[in-house]
Amino acid sequence: MRDDRYRKNIKDRTKKDRDIEEGGDGSFLVEGRNAVLELINSGKDVDKLFIAKDASGGISRIRDAALKHGIVVVECDRRKLDQMSETGAHQGVAAVASAVTYVEIGDIINKANEKGEKPLIVICDSITDPHNLGAIIRSAEIAGAHGVIIPKRRSAGVNAACAKAAAGALSYMPIAKVVNTSAAIDQLKDMGVWIFGTDADGEEDFRKADFKGSAAIVIGSEGEGMSRIVKEKCDFLIKIPMKGHITSLNASAAAAVILFEAMKQRDDT
Amino acid sequence: MRDDRYRKNIKDRTKKDRDIEEGGDGSFLVEGRNAVLELINSGKDVDKLFIAKDASGGISRIRDAALKHGIVVVECDRRKLDQMSETGAHQGVAAVASAVTYVEIGDIINKANEKGEKPLIVICDSITDPHNLGAIIRSAEIAGAHGVIIPKRRSAGVNAACAKAAAGALSYMPIAKVVNTSAAIDQLKDMGVWIFGTDADGEEDFRKADFKGSAAIVIGSEGEGMSRIVKEKCDFLIKIPMKGHITSLNASAAAAVILFEAMKQRDDT
Repeated sequence: MRDDRYRKNIKDRTKKDRDIEEGGDGSFLVEGRNAVLELINSGKDVDKLFIAKDASGGISRIRDAALKHGIVVVECDRRKLDQMSETGAHQGVAAVASAVTYVEIGDIINKANEKGEKPLIVICDSITDPHNLGAIIRSAEIAGAHGVIIPKRRSAGVNAACAKAAAGALSYMPIAKVVNTSAAIDQLKDMGVWIFGTDADGEEDFRKADFKGSAAIVIGSEGEGMSRIVKEKCDFLIKIPMKGHITSLNASAAAAVILFEAMKQRDDT
Repeated sequence: MRDDRYRKNIKDRTKKDRDIEEGGDGSFLVEGRNAVLELINSGKDVDKLFIAKDASGGISRIRDAALKHGIVVVECDRRKLDQMSETGAHQGVAAVASAVTYVEIGDIINKANEKGEKPLIVICDSITDPHNLGAIIRSAEIAGAHGVIIPKRRSAGVNAACAKAAAGALSYMPIAKVVNTSAAIDQLKDMGVWIFGTDADGEEDFRKADFKGSAAIVIGSEGEGMSRIVKEKCDFLIKIPMKGHITSLNASAAAAVILFEAMKQRDDT
């Protein structure tokens, strides 16, 4: 197995190197055109694909394959690849392969069904701080949610900082990585899940919302909240009432407060 | 004013330098024996006093003054002082002067009284992550708490990372820095404030607790929870029920969940 060879490469390096360069969640770097193409076509999860700006020739095959699999492609200076490279022979391309096995949205719904529970899902819309993402995954696990959905782009990665903040929850909480948050919401709606968006301009106090049915809670980015298109897709816009001068909670604090309300309502049933 | 000179020194440097070296919350470095002694005796808030391990002679006067004012003294290598120094003439001593004006516990109680409200206070017991401390201060402000109490030792400082996470709440939330958390709790009890400790082994679900009266909520450190002595001082030990495999919430998530329950109970009154 090629994978084993790459993994071995990683093991030979210090833990700190891995944490910094590959996310420290066990993700690993695959370099060189053939190896990267093989990885992509295997269907394994690829967090990111780095292609040197000046790469030419067969690189278009790799780009096409990445497109087909919805993999995020980052165009970068060749120097960046030189720095990342362990073999020194990246041929203008390197992929960060994920050690987290992402699930499909259907898997999350199935998990809830197996437990005889209505799905409770968190959708992270553009959470860019990995500490926040990890803290949200942790709170979701503790509150009994069945899965977390994150977008492939404009989102913090499930990296070392995220894993640390999640405090082990990554091992238990199924995570679906989606190309299009909006399409994911449509899919959830088709499955009978109500979509609750958190918004400072929301009309309903979150405690008045009914989380006892199948529910997905959308947590928007700190700075900008949910994107417009996602906001429009929500069935309900809920708000957390605030008494002070500061007008928005930290995203992970907001997630915790709402998730525990959902948990309470479900426990009371 | 000497202060102005020091402040000017600071202004000449880049913002990044300031963020890294002095906390970025506007705190500033005072160097040299006379200047430091003057600062301490002025009664201004000093976050930390650094004394070179090999410093001798008149240094004992400074140490005595620091002790008298309850200032945290850090013994360090002279090299550390060399690195921090802007003037190159630290004489073995430097103090980080705080830009946050700390209040007394009595001020927090008075603030609540002025608003005609029962005091709602958060006590951070050994929160060492400045992001968490900042997020707690932010949630406290939003939930309408009247003040936050932090210990001088074994606590994250109110530094740049904390200020960023607090998202402006530092301007509104009175913060008391106490030498002894246990003594602060006694003082609060004497003022008729009930002390609620959060503990995984707590007997009472936090939603059954009564936060409508004068209340202080103790949030313990992530790794170890509250210290034993603080735990024993609590009037009530409350817990947040959890459904997943992970057995503890992030400290700031826990604080948010409990503070919003307190806010709700008070709003319902």
